[in-house]
Amino acid sequence: MAHKVLVIGGGFAGLSAVQALESSDAEITLLDRRNFHLFQPLLYQVATGSLSPSEISSPLRSIFSKQQHVRVLLGEAEHIDATARVVTLVDGARLQYDTLIIAAGSTTTYFGHDEWRPYAQCLKSLEDATEMRGRIFKAFEHAELEGSQANSPWLTFVIVGGGATGVELAGALSEIAHKTLKEDFRSIRPEMAQLIIVDQAPRLLPAFSEHLAMKAEQALVRLGVQCRYGLRVTCIDADGVKLQRPDGSHLEIPSKTVLWAGGVAVPEIVKELHRATDAPTDNRGRIKVLPDLSVPAHPEIFVVGDIAALDNLPGVAQVAMQQGRYAGKVIARRLRKQDPPAPFHYANRGDMAVIGRASAVANIFGFEVSGFPAWFVWAFIHILNLIEFQNRIIVIVRWAFQYLTFSRGARLITGTEQDKN
Amino acid sequence: MAHKVLVIGGGFAGLSAVQALESSDAEITLLDRRNFHLFQPLLYQVATGSLSPSEISSPLRSIFSKQQHVRVLLGEAEHIDATARVVTLVDGARLQYDTLIIAAGSTTTYFGHDEWRPYAQCLKSLEDATEMRGRIFKAFEHAELEGSQANSPWLTFVIVGGGATGVELAGALSEIAHKTLKEDFRSIRPEMAQLIIVDQAPRLLPAFSEHLAMKAEQALVRLGVQCRYGLRVTCIDADGVKLQRPDGSHLEIPSKTVLWAGGVAVPEIVKELHRATDAPTDNRGRIKVLPDLSVPAHPEIFVVGDIAALDNLPGVAQVAMQQGRYAGKVIARRLRKQDPPAPFHYANRGDMAVIGRASAVANIFGFEVSGFPAWFVWAFIHILNLIEFQNRIIVIVRWAFQYLTFSRGARLITGTEQDKN
Repeated sequence: MAHKVLVIGGGFAGLSAVQALESSDAEITLLDRRNFHLFQPLLYQVATGSLSPSEISSPLRSIFSKQQHVRVLLGEAEHIDATARVVTLVDGARLQYDTLIIAAGSTTTYFGHDEWRPYAQCLKSLEDATEMRGRIFKAFEHAELEGSQANSPWLTFVIVGGGATGVELAGALSEIAHKTLKEDFRSIRPEMAQLIIVDQAPRLLPAFSEHLAMKAEQALVRLGVQCRYGLRVTCIDADGVKLQRPDGSHLEIPSKTVLWAGGVAVPEIVKELHRATDAPTDNRGRIKVLPDLSVPAHPEIFVVGDIAALDNLPGVAQVAMQQGRYAGKVIARRLRKQDPPAPFHYANRGDMAVIGRASAVANIFGFEVSGFPAWFVWAFIHILNLIEFQNRIIVIVRWAFQYLTFSRGARLITGTEQDKN
Repeated sequence: MAHKVLVIGGGFAGLSAVQALESSDAEITLLDRRNFHLFQPLLYQVATGSLSPSEISSPLRSIFSKQQHVRVLLGEAEHIDATARVVTLVDGARLQYDTLIIAAGSTTTYFGHDEWRPYAQCLKSLEDATEMRGRIFKAFEHAELEGSQANSPWLTFVIVGGGATGVELAGALSEIAHKTLKEDFRSIRPEMAQLIIVDQAPRLLPAFSEHLAMKAEQALVRLGVQCRYGLRVTCIDADGVKLQRPDGSHLEIPSKTVLWAGGVAVPEIVKELHRATDAPTDNRGRIKVLPDLSVPAHPEIFVVGDIAALDNLPGVAQVAMQQGRYAGKVIARRLRKQDPPAPFHYANRGDMAVIGRASAVANIFGFEVSGFPAWFVWAFIHILNLIEFQNRIIVIVRWAFQYLTFSRGARLITGTEQDKN
C-alpha cells in the first residue's frame, strides 16, 4: 500500500507541498474548494480592472495532469478524526490519510462586525475581486448619472487598512481616477475623486521599515491619496465610515465605496484541527507548529502557510511556498527512511508593495529600493511566478498596453443581479 | 440646439449607429444596461473556457472617450412617450430625444416554459457564459467524485438547438472531453462523455444550405457528437430532458447538464415601443420596420438589429452592424438636409459556424467552404472585428496556445455561492 498524503488547500503552500512530493512514491490527494490555484498577489489588479480572473488562475487539474499519483479533488473538508486519520468532507465523503498537510489559507475578518461586510468589500476570492471591480466602476457611473460634485459620497473611496493590499488598491484607484477614466465622462471629472486610506496604526506598511513606509506615503500623496492614521473604525454602513480618533473624538467620512483591506482570520477547518488535536493556537487562532511545521503530538499532521504560527512570520506567498516545500521534503525524507532535515528556516528574499504606475517600494535581500527599479523587480518576479506560460504572456501584453495607454482592458461591471433576461 | 439622438443598446447595431453619426453634429446619448460592448459571436468560447469575459468585452466609455458629443449612460429604458419624445428609465430619469434608435437586441425565450430555465442554461450574457462554464466543468468534477460510468447523467451533456450556437457548443464540448481534460482525472475517462444535440427541425443549421449542414453533421459525428432531429422538448428538470418523437412516442435523456441554444424573443422595451407607437410586429414580436428601418408613422424612430423584422433577415452581427450603420446614415443625411439614401439592402458577405479545432462551415460571398479554410477565415474575421487592439492580441495568444496544447486557460468554476468566507 502506498503512503497516503492528503493536502488540504491548493494555494501557494499546498501547491509547493505537492510539488516537493512529486518525486516520492506517495499517493497524493490535493483537496480544494475551487478548481483552480489563485495567484493572490495580483488579485488587486483584477479588483481594479487591469487583469481578468483567468489570467491569475490556473486549473489545479492541469497543473498535475501528468502526475498520475496526484489526485485533485473538489470539495470542502469539514471534520478531522486525528485518531482514525480520516477527514470528512461537507458532502459526507471520507478521505483516509497517513499524513495530512493543512494549507487552507486565511479568510477575511471584520473583527466581530460582520454587519460591515455588505458595505466594506473584502478581497480574498476572485468573486470578491470582480465584485469590488464592479463597485468601483459603478460608483463613477452613479456619480455621472447624478452629475456629482467632488465631495459626493459616490466620488469618495475609503480603503480600510494600510498594509500592502491597501497601498496597492489606493495606487490603482488613483490611476483609474486620474488617467483611465480621464476623458470618459461628460458630467463629472473623475480626477476629483477623493481617495482615503485609514488605519489604526501610526503609519503605512507595518511589515516594512519606517523609511520605506515613508517613501510609500510620499508616492501616494503625490498620486492624490490621503493617508489618515490612528483612526479606529466604529461603524461602516450604506452612508460611509465612522471613525474614532485617539483622543476619543469622532469623524465621519460619507462614502458609497468602502474597500476592506483589513484583518485576516483562520478558516473553520483550522478551528476543527484545534478541536481534533488540542493543538495550541496564537491569539489569531493560528496553529502553533513545531520547528518542523508539524502539530505537537501529531508528527503526521503538518500546518503550513498563513494558518501556521511560527517565529511571527507574515502571511505572504513567499512564506507559504517555503513552508509547503519544507513539509513536502520532511515527508519525502521520512518515506525514504532518511534523517529529518534541519528545522524550518525562512529565507526572506524581500518584501514589496506596488504603489502605482511603475512605482513600488521593496526590500530585496536586505536592500531597500523604491520607485521604478522596485517596480521593475516586482513585475519581473510576479510574472515569473505565474504558473502558466500562457498567463505570463497575456499579463505582459495587458501591462504593456496599460503602461502605454492607461487603458484597463478588464473594467467590466458584471454580477448576477443585473442581467436577468 | 443640437439635434438629440438617443440610441438604446450598445451591441453591434447601436455601436454601428453611433459610429455612423460621429461626423455629424448631433448630440448623441448611448444608453445601455451594461458598461461594455459584448462581442456575442465569441460568447460560446467563454462558456467553454477558451476565452475570458474581458477578452470579448470593451468598455463603452473608452470606445467613445474622444467623441465629446457622444455621451454613454448606464441605465435601462422602461417607458417611451412617442408624442412628447421622452424615454423614461427604470430609475425615473427622463431622456428627451429628437431621433430615437432602438437597438436593444434579443433575449432568450423558453417558449412559455420558464420553469426549464434553472435546468437549461442559456447563453446571452457574460454571466450566462460563466455560469455555463461552471456547470460544464463542475459536471466532470461530480463524475470524478462519484467515479461515474459512461452513461452517468453527470457525463451526459444535452444541447437543445442545432443552430450555430448549438453546433459551436457541441464542437467545443467534444474538444473538452477528448483533449483538454484527457489526462486530468483519475476515476473517470472524460472522453466517455455523451454529447447530444437535439432539435425539432430535420437538420442542423437551418440558416445554411443542406450541403453545408450535412458537412457540419459529418464533422460533429467524427467528434463523437450525436445529432438527433425531429424531437420536441416536453420537459426539462433536474433529471434531464423529456422529448417527443414525431410519431408521438416519448424519449428521456437523463442528464445533469442541459445547455439551451434555443429560441430568441424581444425584450420588454420592444413591447413598450409597440404599445407607444402601435407599430406592427411579426409573430416573434419583432417590429415590422419600413425600408428605411424607421417605424411606420414615426420617421424619427428607428429599429435595428435582432428586433427589426425586415425581409426575413437572421439575427446575426452582420445584419445588426449594417442596419445600425444605415440608420445612422439616414439621420446624418437628414441633418445635413441631403436626400435620403436608397432603401436598406443587406449585403450578405457570408455565414459561418465553427465546429471544432480548425474546422468550420462557411458560405462566403456565395462560395461554400468547410474544414480548415473555413475555420481560418472565421478566425481572421472574428479577430479583426474585436473592438480593442489589446483584445485581438490576447485572443490570438489564447487560440495559439489552445491550438498547440489543447489547454483552456479560462476553465474556472466561479460563482457567488461557493466562496463565502
